[in-house]
Amino acid sequence: MYVIVVYDMEADRTQLMLKLCRRYLVHVQNSVLEGEISEGDLTTLKGEIEDLLQEGESVMVYELSSDSLLNRAVYGDDPTEDSRFL
Amino acid sequence: MYVIVVYDMEADRTQLMLKLCRRYLVHVQNSVLEGEISEGDLTTLKGEIEDLLQEGESVMVYELSSDSLLNRAVYGDDPTEDSRFL
Repeated sequence: MYVIVVYDMEADRTQLMLKLCRRYLVHVQNSVLEGEISEGDLTTLKGEIEDLLQEGESVMVYELSSDSLLNRAVYGDDPTEDSRFL
Repeated sequence: MYVIVVYDMEADRTQLMLKLCRRYLVHVQNSVLEGEISEGDLTTLKGEIEDLLQEGESVMVYELSSDSLLNRAVYGDDPTEDSRFL
């Protein structure tokens, strides 16, 4: 399973979500992480995401079959310090 | 072709990128749009994205085969006013 996670958090809480998602995924843009994840870990991660979210915040989780991502392109600056692409 | 676009813009310029991407895609979260798009329109959109971006801003474009999105889940609040899912 390949997932893309995009979060929309209050500015002073972004680091909490980033830290959580980084336990499973790779940080590829300011509010975007992605990577291979097992079904079990994904279930755990979704639960942890729900626990962390407060009013006005949201997270989108896209699940893809592992070989279905045809292309990924980044335009402009990439401000992410650890954007080692998988 | 199905695409997911995530943008990271300066706060006072997000509306410009949203307006551009909305010509082709559906707005599903604060900084996320997605939808079916032809190869030709995607090429046009990528060019327009590049023209609009300024230093410190970035856009990620994920291209998927049309039938490969297994699941999409939204956790927390969805602040997007036109989040009619495809």
